[in-house]
Amino acid sequence: MKSLALSSVYQLLEPGPVVLLTTARRGRANVMALSWHMMVEFEPPLVACVVSNRNYSFAALRATKECVIAIPALGLAPKVVQVGNCSGRDVDKFKRLGLTAAPAEFVAAPLVAECFANLECKVADTRFVNKYCMFILEVLKAWTDPGQKHPKTIHHQGYGRFVVDGETIKLKSRMP
Amino acid sequence: MKSLALSSVYQLLEPGPVVLLTTARRGRANVMALSWHMMVEFEPPLVACVVSNRNYSFAALRATKECVIAIPALGLAPKVVQVGNCSGRDVDKFKRLGLTAAPAEFVAAPLVAECFANLECKVADTRFVNKYCMFILEVLKAWTDPGQKHPKTIHHQGYGRFVVDGETIKLKSRMP
Repeated sequence: MKSLALSSVYQLLEPGPVVLLTTARRGRANVMALSWHMMVEFEPPLVACVVSNRNYSFAALRATKECVIAIPALGLAPKVVQVGNCSGRDVDKFKRLGLTAAPAEFVAAPLVAECFANLECKVADTRFVNKYCMFILEVLKAWTDPGQKHPKTIHHQGYGRFVVDGETIKLKSRMP
Repeated sequence: MKSLALSSVYQLLEPGPVVLLTTARRGRANVMALSWHMMVEFEPPLVACVVSNRNYSFAALRATKECVIAIPALGLAPKVVQVGNCSGRDVDKFKRLGLTAAPAEFVAAPLVAECFANLECKVADTRFVNKYCMFILEVLKAWTDPGQKHPKTIHHQGYGRFVVDGETIKLKSRMP
């Protein structure tokens, strides 16, 4: 895993990929799938995400105020769906799905070794949690896997339907 | 334009497309490009978005508490970039870019006739505006253009680089 400049983090999340969110509580790691996220600030990168309080990860995120956002490429799509179809209440999802929890630098939540990018985050604001289940995260450290070149991300359209990254186009723009 | 069930709105925004956001103030319509948005609730659909206070649209959105989120397909990509490269302070963007402002049903902000989907929104919560420039929008009415079948959306990766929707995959999922 290679370190990525925090100023470039938005380029990973802005296109709207499905991500995995890991937490760790009382020595137990968990992982969920998430599409309801957006950038809020470039640098330090702030990310908003909605984690339903019906998700087992909700309590861990609220209590520990730490998580990792891991971005899976297309090859992981079947596992991403399985992550969403079972609960950390019942199973150790890392073990069941054969995902590798790797130690992070600043947070107890694990990186997902199979993902092409991992963002270590702390919860920066909880004022929107009660009403919207929305957490504001600050990205503390970003990792990318240099072994995964040009990863294609997946974008959820509902009920297991995903649109996969296609061609890339470049237009002249003055915007970051 | 055909009406779309509000319960299906998340399927449009969840994949993370670049959208246009229109406002109208003192009889003058404006439009900006936006990638920092996410779903917050399924139904009624709530959408969070970050509109920088450096954008001319910011004041109109805050004052009128109304907007339209219009979703452009690939063919509009050059215009989307041009929308982002000029300001409503200086020009009438609809006129300059040849975009058609069509009347909405519930809000003064116009639909963008060339977009395959248009969401009429009112601002539902402004408590996050001062700190994060974040607006919580409620979608009041959703329109889709039946003439645009299988539109490919574009996803911003920074500096005019966009990844275009590619293939669609379907996996067995129990999640909405």
